[in-house]
Amino acid sequence: MEIISVGNELLIGKVLNTNAQWMSKRATALGITVKRVTVVPDIVEETARAIREALRRKPQFIITTGGLGPTFDDKTLESIAKALKRRLEINPEALEMVKEKCRIYAAKRGHELLELTAPRTKMATIPENATPIRNPSGTAPAVRIDLEETTLIALPGVPREMEAIFEETILPLLKEASCGTVFYERSLFVGDVMESVLAPLIDMTMQNNPGIYIKSHPGSDENQPQIELHFSTTSNNKKSAQAKLQKAVAQLSGFITKNSGKVHPAINLNLGNPEGSTT
Amino acid sequence: MEIISVGNELLIGKVLNTNAQWMSKRATALGITVKRVTVVPDIVEETARAIREALRRKPQFIITTGGLGPTFDDKTLESIAKALKRRLEINPEALEMVKEKCRIYAAKRGHELLELTAPRTKMATIPENATPIRNPSGTAPAVRIDLEETTLIALPGVPREMEAIFEETILPLLKEASCGTVFYERSLFVGDVMESVLAPLIDMTMQNNPGIYIKSHPGSDENQPQIELHFSTTSNNKKSAQAKLQKAVAQLSGFITKNSGKVHPAINLNLGNPEGSTT
Repeated sequence: MEIISVGNELLIGKVLNTNAQWMSKRATALGITVKRVTVVPDIVEETARAIREALRRKPQFIITTGGLGPTFDDKTLESIAKALKRRLEINPEALEMVKEKCRIYAAKRGHELLELTAPRTKMATIPENATPIRNPSGTAPAVRIDLEETTLIALPGVPREMEAIFEETILPLLKEASCGTVFYERSLFVGDVMESVLAPLIDMTMQNNPGIYIKSHPGSDENQPQIELHFSTTSNNKKSAQAKLQKAVAQLSGFITKNSGKVHPAINLNLGNPEGSTT
Repeated sequence: MEIISVGNELLIGKVLNTNAQWMSKRATALGITVKRVTVVPDIVEETARAIREALRRKPQFIITTGGLGPTFDDKTLESIAKALKRRLEINPEALEMVKEKCRIYAAKRGHELLELTAPRTKMATIPENATPIRNPSGTAPAVRIDLEETTLIALPGVPREMEAIFEETILPLLKEASCGTVFYERSLFVGDVMESVLAPLIDMTMQNNPGIYIKSHPGSDENQPQIELHFSTTSNNKKSAQAKLQKAVAQLSGFITKNSGKVHPAINLNLGNPEGSTT
């Protein structure tokens, strides 16, 4: 899976890309590997280029966020149309979704019925042969396009809307694609030992524990060096995954203690996997 | 400028990409445009591919973060060497930097002098014809490579180290490249008006105010819709930039009030530009 985040606000550092992290966490928990995140500006050529490049890498899913709204700089669907050489057209189903949201908005505020202005129609103007996806939390529908090797999905950039559509429509898709594989992880915190001392110990532990990936994360305080060792694996067997993690954690802990490092108790993590916990 | 963030921890959603945001903010404040951020895993082929793709887009700067440490999965310099078809070699200057850090570490803890083990030598093993950059806050030196159209810089992923090297060595480089241009911005918060109503008003204001970019950001609460309107421009004349921003803000505020929207006072922002404030 690849994520393409569209928005100048990300590239000027105004907004932190929490959408990409949120989706990565959810997808990883479901056993889907996120291979790349690309952030591009609100420029049709740049977004279209990033989409074409991503398609050439043939991921099973490409999910874009941002650029589906009514304003001039919401250009993601135009960019997708350009990348795929498809025309944009008013999709009747999408238009009905937008109309319904306008009805609800008007009723809530006691306004008269809202006109179907150009900016509103824009949100229902999507590439041909695309399927609009219901937005339970905002106006602009999301869009799904099934291509030969990739399912391309365009989600809104407002986190609340992106998350609501993801949970309702994208999550079941990813779950089906991952065939029951789940991501398991544990963390071990160690002190009084340099990362360069840990390096060969990590190598040894990984060689002895196939399927377990170990990554070291130095802490942020140089004077109190504490390092997080993050163990992970994907599996469709919870018991065996946890046993394998436990064995690797115990082995590396032993190596570190022998090298006079301090080991704090391991922490079980659960990356938001709704199916169960790794504890 | 492009940023390439290297690290599985970003793609599994374990870590939020605050490094990319921090650098984007600093570069933008200096008038440098960040055109793309790419996040790739700790896999040589993937990182090398992202570097080659970025080089083809010919940005003035490519800055990578992450993957300079002593462990097996710190592969950024190997990836750069592969992308540029250069050999890796032990750089004497880089080796001296690593040795010095080991001396300091040993002295602090009353250890004996630390051996120059393979993981430590690894941090001084950089592509040929590259320049090591002092790391004031950690062990692994950063690396600079001047190519025909692009300056490629590899920074560590630990935020404290990345920031220290950026401030000491990268910032002066970017400043020189931007020739005194600075980024200015203001925000206006509006309520009781839908984004689809704002869209044509924003268009009109942008047409009347060349050089001013306006982007609307819907708030996160659907029931209390408040929208942030973000005005920005780059200029090497502070006074004129601020006057232009002020004119655009006043004009759009007028349009919105006429459309029975509520306008809250404009907020002056300053994107961490050390040269002065935009207030």
